Amino acid sequence: MKKINVNNSSTSLAEQVAIEIEKLIQTKELNKGAQLPNEFELAETLNVGRGTIREAIKILSSKNVVEVLRGKGTFVSQQTGIVKDPLGLRFIQEDKIKLAHDLLEVRMMIEPEIAGLAAINATTEDILKLKKVEEEIEAQILRDESHEENDRIFHSIIASCSKNVVVLNLIPIIHTAVSLFIEVTENTLHQETITTHREIISAIENQDVENAKKWMNLHLEYNKKILDSLFETKK
Amino acid sequence: MKKINVNNSSTSLAEQVAIEIEKLIQTKELNKGAQLPNEFELAETLNVGRGTIREAIKILSSKNVVEVLRGKGTFVSQQTGIVKDPLGLRFIQEDKIKLAHDLLEVRMMIEPEIAGLAAINATTEDILKLKKVEEEIEAQILRDESHEENDRIFHSIIASCSKNVVVLNLIPIIHTAVSLFIEVTENTLHQETITTHREIISAIENQDVENAKKWMNLHLEYNKKILDSLFETKK
Repeated sequence: MKKINVNNSSTSLAEQVAIEIEKLIQTKELNKGAQLPNEFELAETLNVGRGTIREAIKILSSKNVVEVLRGKGTFVSQQTGIVKDPLGLRFIQEDKIKLAHDLLEVRMMIEPEIAGLAAINATTEDILKLKKVEEEIEAQILRDESHEENDRIFHSIIASCSKNVVVLNLIPIIHTAVSLFIEVTENTLHQETITTHREIISAIENQDVENAKKWMNLHLEYNKKILDSLFETKK
Repeated sequence: MKKINVNNSSTSLAEQVAIEIEKLIQTKELNKGAQLPNEFELAETLNVGRGTIREAIKILSSKNVVEVLRGKGTFVSQQTGIVKDPLGLRFIQEDKIKLAHDLLEVRMMIEPEIAGLAAINATTEDILKLKKVEEEIEAQILRDESHEENDRIFHSIIASCSKNVVVLNLIPIIHTAVSLFIEVTENTLHQETITTHREIISAIENQDVENAKKWMNLHLEYNKKILDSLFETKK
């Protein structure tokens, strides 16, 4: 770890320290989940005061680069640097139905293609995971329980099946879309969910790119119909 | 603005203050670009110390919710809440060519569809803007100057033509992709850039959805060929 040389730019010392700590993660000196050296050690190694280290940790924490666990220490976040609402959607000044519509439009651009990549790249283990979460979703639907969390997991697993490293990081956006959709529609699509989920899994298992795309698209089309009818009701 | 009641959760007081300030932006009491009340006023209104206000401002600044301009004050950021690298791509542990490839794969999912939406929704003013930036790009190519910044603007304008509020916020991700592509390929696609850009503009102007998609796709296909040849060279 190199000592910080205070420069004359507009970047504060704490920001410079934060960048140095980011470099330790980028060069794998600190891996995901690893604990950071304590405040004293960091202050000594980087030749800055403990106050500056504390401020740098706060900057990194607000960017989800590190996670501060009270009484335990500071750790490199699992989803390093992926902020909670990466697109700042909470600041979009539109009504929720328009936002849900536009999010769904974006999902329809990417998710069928992601399913297509999944059909090419999924491993046997991936497919077992998909089947397991689908079983849970179906059981929850039967018991009339919320399957929101498992629905997120379902779409996350498909994203990870794509083996595209950027797609993986797009998941938080898809999650926001799923939550907002459920919020505005009170998600009533139970039978369609079961049918389309099953067809998607089967296409991925059979490495059938076209059907994986088609069924993911249909899955989203069902959602879109509901949103469109909400649009109509509003008029 | 309501006073903060210290609660017993794990959220620090500064974080709670940051959330209150975010709410002022979400409810449009503070618009994009607006100056925040000064430290004294905020401290008094929210009934917390100035140190807490300073800390809250730092949190908001590191999330790009506000921007602190030295000697001028604190303002609501134009791209409120969109951090520089929202997907944490700087932490992806892959070589740059794989990352550039995966980013391009994602661009190929979304940008042709965005061009299609632009063909439906672009205004006359949007098209004039597109033509103006394209003129500049072509002049820069002729003078053998970098057109990286204008290329970003070109794709940003098309995204704004889509009138999809989520697409607009995806722009920083597309920008990362463009920069990285130029970095790994030393962008030599000058004639193709001119031809495809012109065809894209013309399709958008003619509200020709299919051609807008087709030419945007071709534009990215050219890029993909170059990346693929880099992959081959590496083997």
